[in-house]
Amino acid sequence: MTTDSGDRLVPEEWQRGPRYGGAYTFARCPATRDLSRADVAIIGIPMDMAVLYRPGARFGPRAIRDASGQLRPHHWDEAMMEPPYDKLRVVDYGDLDVFPGYIEQTMEHLLEQLRPVVDAGVFPLVLGGDHSSTLPVLRALAAKHGTLSLVHFDAHPDYWEGPEGRPYHHGTPFRIAVDEGLIDPSASVQVGIRGSLSESLIEKSREAGFHLITADEFARQGVASTLEAIQRIVNLPVYVSLDIDSVDPAYAPGTGTPEVAGLTSREIVDLVRGLKGLPFVGIDVVEVAPAYDSGEITALLAANLVHEFLMLLRRGR
Amino acid sequence: MTTDSGDRLVPEEWQRGPRYGGAYTFARCPATRDLSRADVAIIGIPMDMAVLYRPGARFGPRAIRDASGQLRPHHWDEAMMEPPYDKLRVVDYGDLDVFPGYIEQTMEHLLEQLRPVVDAGVFPLVLGGDHSSTLPVLRALAAKHGTLSLVHFDAHPDYWEGPEGRPYHHGTPFRIAVDEGLIDPSASVQVGIRGSLSESLIEKSREAGFHLITADEFARQGVASTLEAIQRIVNLPVYVSLDIDSVDPAYAPGTGTPEVAGLTSREIVDLVRGLKGLPFVGIDVVEVAPAYDSGEITALLAANLVHEFLMLLRRGR
Amino acid sequence: MTTDSGDRLVPEEWQRGPRYGGAYTFARCPATRDLSRADVAIIGIPMDMAVLYRPGARFGPRAIRDASGQLRPHHWDEAMMEPPYDKLRVVDYGDLDVFPGYIEQTMEHLLEQLRPVVDAGVFPLVLGGDHSSTLPVLRALAAKHGTLSLVHFDAHPDYWEGPEGRPYHHGTPFRIAVDEGLIDPSASVQVGIRGSLSESLIEKSREAGFHLITADEFARQGVASTLEAIQRIVNLPVYVSLDIDSVDPAYAPGTGTPEVAGLTSREIVDLVRGLKGLPFVGIDVVEVAPAYDSGEITALLAANLVHEFLMLLRRGR
Amino acid sequence: MTTDSGDRLVPEEWQRGPRYGGAYTFARCPATRDLSRADVAIIGIPMDMAVLYRPGARFGPRAIRDASGQLRPHHWDEAMMEPPYDKLRVVDYGDLDVFPGYIEQTMEHLLEQLRPVVDAGVFPLVLGGDHSSTLPVLRALAAKHGTLSLVHFDAHPDYWEGPEGRPYHHGTPFRIAVDEGLIDPSASVQVGIRGSLSESLIEKSREAGFHLITADEFARQGVASTLEAIQRIVNLPVYVSLDIDSVDPAYAPGTGTPEVAGLTSREIVDLVRGLKGLPFVGIDVVEVAPAYDSGEITALLAANLVHEFLMLLRRGR
Amino acid sequence: MTTDSGDRLVPEEWQRGPRYGGAYTFARCPATRDLSRADVAIIGIPMDMAVLYRPGARFGPRAIRDASGQLRPHHWDEAMMEPPYDKLRVVDYGDLDVFPGYIEQTMEHLLEQLRPVVDAGVFPLVLGGDHSSTLPVLRALAAKHGTLSLVHFDAHPDYWEGPEGRPYHHGTPFRIAVDEGLIDPSASVQVGIRGSLSESLIEKSREAGFHLITADEFARQGVASTLEAIQRIVNLPVYVSLDIDSVDPAYAPGTGTPEVAGLTSREIVDLVRGLKGLPFVGIDVVEVAPAYDSGEITALLAANLVHEFLMLLRRGR
Amino acid sequence: MTTDSGDRLVPEEWQRGPRYGGAYTFARCPATRDLSRADVAIIGIPMDMAVLYRPGARFGPRAIRDASGQLRPHHWDEAMMEPPYDKLRVVDYGDLDVFPGYIEQTMEHLLEQLRPVVDAGVFPLVLGGDHSSTLPVLRALAAKHGTLSLVHFDAHPDYWEGPEGRPYHHGTPFRIAVDEGLIDPSASVQVGIRGSLSESLIEKSREAGFHLITADEFARQGVASTLEAIQRIVNLPVYVSLDIDSVDPAYAPGTGTPEVAGLTSREIVDLVRGLKGLPFVGIDVVEVAPAYDSGEITALLAANLVHEFLMLLRRGR
Repeated sequence: MTTDSGDRLVPEEWQRGPRYGGAYTFARCPATRDLSRADVAIIGIPMDMAVLYRPGARFGPRAIRDASGQLRPHHWDEAMMEPPYDKLRVVDYGDLDVFPGYIEQTMEHLLEQLRPVVDAGVFPLVLGGDHSSTLPVLRALAAKHGTLSLVHFDAHPDYWEGPEGRPYHHGTPFRIAVDEGLIDPSASVQVGIRGSLSESLIEKSREAGFHLITADEFARQGVASTLEAIQRIVNLPVYVSLDIDSVDPAYAPGTGTPEVAGLTSREIVDLVRGLKGLPFVGIDVVEVAPAYDSGEITALLAANLVHEFLMLLRRGR
Repeated sequence: MTTDSGDRLVPEEWQRGPRYGGAYTFARCPATRDLSRADVAIIGIPMDMAVLYRPGARFGPRAIRDASGQLRPHHWDEAMMEPPYDKLRVVDYGDLDVFPGYIEQTMEHLLEQLRPVVDAGVFPLVLGGDHSSTLPVLRALAAKHGTLSLVHFDAHPDYWEGPEGRPYHHGTPFRIAVDEGLIDPSASVQVGIRGSLSESLIEKSREAGFHLITADEFARQGVASTLEAIQRIVNLPVYVSLDIDSVDPAYAPGTGTPEVAGLTSREIVDLVRGLKGLPFVGIDVVEVAPAYDSGEITALLAANLVHEFLMLLRRGR
Repeated sequence: MTTDSGDRLVPEEWQRGPRYGGAYTFARCPATRDLSRADVAIIGIPMDMAVLYRPGARFGPRAIRDASGQLRPHHWDEAMMEPPYDKLRVVDYGDLDVFPGYIEQTMEHLLEQLRPVVDAGVFPLVLGGDHSSTLPVLRALAAKHGTLSLVHFDAHPDYWEGPEGRPYHHGTPFRIAVDEGLIDPSASVQVGIRGSLSESLIEKSREAGFHLITADEFARQGVASTLEAIQRIVNLPVYVSLDIDSVDPAYAPGTGTPEVAGLTSREIVDLVRGLKGLPFVGIDVVEVAPAYDSGEITALLAANLVHEFLMLLRRGR
Repeated sequence: MTTDSGDRLVPEEWQRGPRYGGAYTFARCPATRDLSRADVAIIGIPMDMAVLYRPGARFGPRAIRDASGQLRPHHWDEAMMEPPYDKLRVVDYGDLDVFPGYIEQTMEHLLEQLRPVVDAGVFPLVLGGDHSSTLPVLRALAAKHGTLSLVHFDAHPDYWEGPEGRPYHHGTPFRIAVDEGLIDPSASVQVGIRGSLSESLIEKSREAGFHLITADEFARQGVASTLEAIQRIVNLPVYVSLDIDSVDPAYAPGTGTPEVAGLTSREIVDLVRGLKGLPFVGIDVVEVAPAYDSGEITALLAANLVHEFLMLLRRGR
Repeated sequence: MTTDSGDRLVPEEWQRGPRYGGAYTFARCPATRDLSRADVAIIGIPMDMAVLYRPGARFGPRAIRDASGQLRPHHWDEAMMEPPYDKLRVVDYGDLDVFPGYIEQTMEHLLEQLRPVVDAGVFPLVLGGDHSSTLPVLRALAAKHGTLSLVHFDAHPDYWEGPEGRPYHHGTPFRIAVDEGLIDPSASVQVGIRGSLSESLIEKSREAGFHLITADEFARQGVASTLEAIQRIVNLPVYVSLDIDSVDPAYAPGTGTPEVAGLTSREIVDLVRGLKGLPFVGIDVVEVAPAYDSGEITALLAANLVHEFLMLLRRGR
Repeated sequence: MTTDSGDRLVPEEWQRGPRYGGAYTFARCPATRDLSRADVAIIGIPMDMAVLYRPGARFGPRAIRDASGQLRPHHWDEAMMEPPYDKLRVVDYGDLDVFPGYIEQTMEHLLEQLRPVVDAGVFPLVLGGDHSSTLPVLRALAAKHGTLSLVHFDAHPDYWEGPEGRPYHHGTPFRIAVDEGLIDPSASVQVGIRGSLSESLIEKSREAGFHLITADEFARQGVASTLEAIQRIVNLPVYVSLDIDSVDPAYAPGTGTPEVAGLTSREIVDLVRGLKGLPFVGIDVVEVAPAYDSGEITALLAANLVHEFLMLLRRGR
């Protein structure tokens, strides 16, 4: 139900029908695994087996795609394409395969599925899934681009050390990523950290080298100062990982481990927009758990953030 | 994300991934408008502008597709296809275009969009949308097959006469269909009729010739007797229109005009299965309004009923 | 917004507008406290202070009125009134005043407010409120009609003895009513009783003289046999008290103390219809708690049951 | 159930009963269509046929009235009336009639129904309904007052051009209003505009002459500066149209086309209060869709904004 | 907050307070791991990592405990204990430890935690968790009692063969149990099986020796005939595993893989009651996923079924 | 299921299991009424009989305890205790007994139940319940400590005078407290007051001596200035009463009488933290009504605020 206009696939919206109808891909972009005609691949990782509290992020990709129906353009009189889809070939690659209950096999299998995308030079824009789904993406990207800078929006540093023999859960991906050299903490920033009893965790993350800005600090210093820090610190190819729980539960109730006193929607949108010009190699938006959402507002926020990221990627093309 | 195995497209499930992932087509059937390789086309009509009470049926097609993710098969060791998809080529044709607020233009436009499907000899299995979406399907089919028998499951006869100058709403399709000669009421059955103050409406429907079985009568006579009546009365090419409000609100809360004391899920499933052997030319399942659903049970019932219809269509192939 | 056509007020539906619009009275009946032009007064008692588990029945009257918007008739071409409103003058009397936390003062105040209705010869059809709201209605009616027969649909006998010094809660109204001689248990029937550990309670109710039919017994003997028992036993002016929790939680989740394995919507509708011909003096439908409802199905069932009661009251006029 | 104390009808609250009980009019104001005793008429337009995404705004008037039960005063010892009802005679006029699916006939019929109100010199305070319901109000008012200034709070400029032959939907009212000379864009302000791909739309609105303040700009400049602009620009009789989606989905999830990063409840309240002194001729609050609300917070916000508008209207009396 | 009256702990209800208050143990039974004073231990297994569709069963134990607050007795004047707690010492053992994502380690760890309970001669009544949580219980019990008879209520046979190298998920426990000799299929019964495309699965289960009664067959043959079959076939120590999805989604929407046309609440209650006299060694109620529940009806049904099981266990004491 | 390590009981978290499992006490603190080993007692008062609008706060204590499962610490490698539980012995005392409908008897009974806690020198941290539950706590504390300073966060001053003969409801506790000399208004602060028609109420509260900061004033002056006022004014032993409706409905929809334009979660957290160093004698968090909550965000906020209060109490130990 997409149209092939010469050398590229274009979102269905330009063709016909109400936005809420049709094939349920992200923003009605073409569903394909043909990487030869894509600049960006929207990829779902529908897993939540690594969640320590409320599960349901496996339905995150579906919820974000559903909510993305509200993204525009809609117009009647011309077939003109508008940003970002005029210059950026975005496809919906579908969801990757996961094995509930078998996280180690899942981690390997995800890496195998991601490698062809990265190898084809297609930019992965991942829809989680719980935060452990970031790890195989980092592994695939670091294998190509070397050690990365991380820009990380989250309520939690996700820098816990897993228990003996069970390294993976949704609080450990960045500890593992540092240990494996996938990211360089001294070239990385974490924004929005907060919650009960995380003092020692924050210290550990800072000891590892991360530039960590707590939600309290962010509330005092604001968007502009935070963006300055990010622009100053990241100096490697950039991976952005946006956990929707960085935002306050009022704006994003549909997530697994919400923490009060978080960012507003205005703030997260301004933070994302302010990342312009960074040398992105991969992006994810994770931890949307629609069973706890209300009126689809969490999924809608996530869909809009993906849209903002696409606008960033289009710049300069 | 579907696979083309020689001469046919097969549901994605046989390939890979969790059932809840991937492209959100009905039962993961291939999304295509290539009618040359389809026996049955699942077609959404995402409209609810003709609803007199609770709107929201425009999201019915999406909800049914989402819920259809629970349909099986899932297996790991072999690529064997199971009924109905082994012998019946089912595709998801996507949603048709509608014009909110402009029901007359919508009716015409729907007919234009449906004609190519019917002309190609592909069986339309329509996901509503409110019940007015049945009318253009009947028009397209009657143009090809002549006057039809209607098998109609509903809480309401939908045989109201519209007000002067505004013929269309979700209670008038079968009055118009009779007036236009699309269906022959004397060869048609209505099952499940009930609700406040519908005495005179029931009489009018019966006067028109319909074999009308109220929900009260159905409760007394049961499934077998009802099926005998259907098999006895219908003698023309058969169109089945299943309004989900035929079922009790306990089983199907997600609909626009629920009526208490309706059919159980067991009864509607047995009724559908009992239609075997009829000369079907078209089928719809309408009036699923997910904003009023609970735990997706209405959409899940609708998806299973579509599956049961597909099983019927596969018989004899 | 009602119309005064000579000697009577008629529901607004006959005039204009969508059913879901307008003034939110029961079935769009006229809102008035002018008893001189009413046969039946729909009266809300918005209290839940006597609930032992989930509160919220104070919003029961509002929810039933809202749901009653789905009741018909609707027609465009004539001003003809249909049953029951053609022969029965039904008004919406609004809600009575209650004092949260002060149940004894509330009980007295309710009685004072109900007396004028009963004294005017207007039939009270009460929307609860928790089940303690039945007691002042019984007191007002028994003062006029003498001891009454009770037809009682409920999951619980509501025949508990209150704790010393605190006689009122929603499980005690019929104990008090018997003690005060308002109802004659030997001329009264209770249907649908069930739930954990109620053995001794059932025995006590039976010892008091009630003809008590448990939900288990009802499941075995059915509607017809139950109705025979009711018709046989009641021999005094009849008060019907219908606790929505008599129905199974699947059909009526929106209530304070739901009990599994209850009646179906079909069964309760058939039971109410089967009461025809009894010498009714008052009716209530209680314990609708919309905060726990789903898709308004509990309120819709309650509204339809009120409608069925009105149809009963119209018979013979 | 209101009381006629001499020359005026007063809200029921002064008489008796819990705020959540009684007749469900706005803030328990008297329900009447007698315009001779009204200064302001609360009027519902229960339509959503023109919605492009999530329908349900037809239940907006009901939801706002239900939520208005939380508005005060409540007091026990005296019959004193408090603002705004002490000096402003506010009645609930009920809902107007609409024809689902027939928007052109609906537009004409709404105009016919609104004219008598405007002609009687009663101030219309309209509860939508989707945003297309603003258009007939503007037509009725401009016929009396001439071209108007618009103060417009919204996420969208609603200045789209409708498709050929289908001019009406909820994104076109102000384009039509400008074309018909009902409002003067150069004397009008739009506040809160945002969302995906609306760049060209914003430009078109500005080219038409509107003083358009995007949500981004509002976030930077704040309430006071925005109010200065409004006070500076509007110089004709003022119509205020407040689309609840001007507010962020966290504060107003119950709407048809929510957009992230919107106004807070504090901001919209302060903006409304800051309109004091303008020469109002009409006001609406539109696009409340309760099926998507959570804990009634959207409807409660809308009810409070209506209350704030009433306080504005009372000033100077 | 429980009281030690001599040699036993008794539920808190006998002491004081509203049923909805206090410590949230099952039916307010004492929370303890002191097995020396228990006959039955209510044990939660809060896992859902093995779910193939909707997760959330990890909150099943909490939801069932919360809902169990509605179980009685309540009385004010005496400290009399009523069934089942007068003769059966029931304790709430709390939840066992699980490792999200690591199902094999979890399976081992669960077995280690269950062994002491079984070894102490305490009867395990397990609250799931997904259906894979049954397996370690069977392992612990079979180690003590030898091969068991299974009485299994479910929509699915859960007799799939897991994929190579990943044996565990919530559809495989009984395949593994048969392979390990924990249960004897020829002495076991499965009731309620249904759903899309399960033909071959049903055949495989029957080939293995299970007496499998599909939901269709159950609908035809009824409760009594089914109970006769169970009483005839089971001849070993009995384990009862009750998957709440055996019940229809109308009665139990809160579960991971609902299937339409299932049992009613009346039927499942009668089936459980009809198991009286069997030589039980263990029982579970699994797959309650409260995030999909409505008005707590699924959890309430589960709590009542646990109560019915306790009544069975008390018989003969 | 708690462990007794020498002279103290420690939260279960230090031992084992997922945070969402186990006994449902606050933050998994030990459930006990043994006051000899407690510094702080978490006490639920599960009442809502005094609510004037939406009831349901009786389930507030349960909801807060459930949500507190998300509080940390969690760690695997050591048994180290973290703040506040390392130095502060916190126990969950369970819920007190209340008598629905009998508020006067309830008030007396609550006082009797609270006295032993206060007399034992244990700090009461109360989970409401509606706001009337504050009154018996104030009575118990003032009997020991003398007249108190009140720090009061709320949308309403709760300084209404009850109607003649019915003094208690959730809007009167502080009027009564002042009248009884339990609190000294001139040494007390109220923050967050707002809502329709409360002008005269605000005046009355100020006339009584309260330092009242409306939500409007707070929005202008901010956190720091407010905290300065509090630190300046309170000079007696301090009781903090935090009504969750002080927060905006976007952040706390789950409450009985929400008011728009309230505090953000960031602001209330910063306000609580800023109370450090005050001579606290008692604290409550009231009016959480989970039936109106969304995704548990209100309960989660309340649980976090309790946690913040515990951190305050730990300071200096």
